[in-house]
Amino acid sequence: MSELRKDPITNSWVIIAADRALRPSRFKSPTTSKLTGQQNPFAPGNESMTPPEIARVPDENNPQQWLVRVIPNKYPALEIEGRNAIQQDGLYEKMDGVGAHEVIIESPNPEFKLHLLTQPHLVAVLQTYRDRMADLSQDSRFVTTVLFRNSGAHAGATVAHGHAQLIALPMVPPQIQARLSTTESYFKANGSNVFEDIIGHEERTGERVVCTTDDFVCFTPYASRSPYELMIVPRRQSARFEECADKELEAFASILSEALNRLECYLGDFAYNFMLQSAPRTAAGASWYRWHLQIVPRLTQVAGFEWATNFFINPTTPESAAESLRRVRLK
Amino acid sequence: MSELRKDPITNSWVIIAADRALRPSRFKSPTTSKLTGQQNPFAPGNESMTPPEIARVPDENNPQQWLVRVIPNKYPALEIEGRNAIQQDGLYEKMDGVGAHEVIIESPNPEFKLHLLTQPHLVAVLQTYRDRMADLSQDSRFVTTVLFRNSGAHAGATVAHGHAQLIALPMVPPQIQARLSTTESYFKANGSNVFEDIIGHEERTGERVVCTTDDFVCFTPYASRSPYELMIVPRRQSARFEECADKELEAFASILSEALNRLECYLGDFAYNFMLQSAPRTAAGASWYRWHLQIVPRLTQVAGFEWATNFFINPTTPESAAESLRRVRLK
Repeated sequence: MSELRKDPITNSWVIIAADRALRPSRFKSPTTSKLTGQQNPFAPGNESMTPPEIARVPDENNPQQWLVRVIPNKYPALEIEGRNAIQQDGLYEKMDGVGAHEVIIESPNPEFKLHLLTQPHLVAVLQTYRDRMADLSQDSRFVTTVLFRNSGAHAGATVAHGHAQLIALPMVPPQIQARLSTTESYFKANGSNVFEDIIGHEERTGERVVCTTDDFVCFTPYASRSPYELMIVPRRQSARFEECADKELEAFASILSEALNRLECYLGDFAYNFMLQSAPRTAAGASWYRWHLQIVPRLTQVAGFEWATNFFINPTTPESAAESLRRVRLK
Repeated sequence: MSELRKDPITNSWVIIAADRALRPSRFKSPTTSKLTGQQNPFAPGNESMTPPEIARVPDENNPQQWLVRVIPNKYPALEIEGRNAIQQDGLYEKMDGVGAHEVIIESPNPEFKLHLLTQPHLVAVLQTYRDRMADLSQDSRFVTTVLFRNSGAHAGATVAHGHAQLIALPMVPPQIQARLSTTESYFKANGSNVFEDIIGHEERTGERVVCTTDDFVCFTPYASRSPYELMIVPRRQSARFEECADKELEAFASILSEALNRLECYLGDFAYNFMLQSAPRTAAGASWYRWHLQIVPRLTQVAGFEWATNFFINPTTPESAAESLRRVRLK
């Protein structure tokens, strides 16, 4: 059983997920070795290597085959059973590690890249993200669902075959609570939504904008924590990604694909994390919050200063990063 | 000029240190290649490759030679000149990146390991840490000094020749402020120092203790963020490392050396960060805070879930980590 434990010096929580230490890749240095054939649990034909399937999108041209497949994480950080209450542990506090942990395999091709999928395929991927988040959100035990993607060994991927992950939590993590509080304070002080004001300011000044569409703005955030970090914000107000209509996902697929493509054309093959920030269920109607996507290329190492202070050092200005990404010759 | 910029969604600050992008190692994947001879700016004979020396400890056996050498960082995250005031930047807020950034080269041997230095040499290193922190602390522009060590490419080191770094800041970083607030709240609620209570609890239960001396306790923290993380806490109450007497540094050298030695005997050659947590000048007399050292072996990658939530997933229980480190056969 996993545990959530609270640090009495920082009041922050940690997930102690002991069973994950059994993962085959345990503590090896990052490698880019591609697992293929029999050893790749995510490849077609190896479905029996994974826990039973939660959902799939069939391939229209070949209905026996899948295009997107959702499974429980075989080495979950959190488990579905347990008591969702704080327990005293001597001086300390802990909770059972209750939650869900799913894996979304976005293509049967072990070598696929997200931004090179066909537009309908990428839309099917985004629909799967949305539908799984919405489904978990209906479970009364869960308040927050976090969808993220670790692409490449340097970004923490332990299986080379591309995939996203979804973790549902019984509480709102402190960092997400801080986002809600800060944006609510801004709303109260200024009478406006900070995301709306940011995209307005960015489009007026233009220096950090990478690309835009009728529905989305993609830019390098003013206080980017790392080089070539991107944020994609919808123009339409909505706190939750779960509420996106199919039409909005089609538009999102276009800008997501362009953003990743620009990064790859400029940086070459690169590892990245992306995080879909959507309001917890308890803040579903929040007019001060807006869902958005953060893309963080993993070019630098988080090091001692960041560990000690949570104060990031970024050696590339967001302005020069945006200029490079605007100018890049697209393949 | 570096800038401190505030993120309007999280209210956290980032250092945009544009000149650091000129560093030779810019964005290469981590490598463990050893820079030696002429190319190693930290080796004896190459002193002219670095900015002018701030301090040195001479080698008693060979007074022309140095044992420990302190220099300004050639690619500083912060610079000594500038205005220490918040400026409006459109929608955003920023400050000049005022601060000091020093490098402490702990041995002339390009291949040295900290825990294999002789006891007097390691004491001289710790005295240098203390003296530089105390000196910067007397500059009225600086409030917080952060001493950290990135050892190995996977821990963010860009020069293989071992060294520590010292950054002095004009403010208290939010994460350090949170530590002060949490420990002060604990003191008010319980009438005791949380560090004193933690080492008392750890010694009584024993399950997370790795090693102890008359003056220090070394253990795996209850809510360790990563596998084999260690904390070393002095038994004597003192908020600031700057106030350590030489005698205390001798005792600290012994337990630091043992802790790193146990980690290496168990993990093999490993990358790590260590962070010396000492109270800012504004909290110098705080009876609720105590200086301590955090050692974080870099065995796992910070990935999307951690970036999104600041909620760490640790796949090894602190109890099993402590047991392994207690039992290891020391070389």
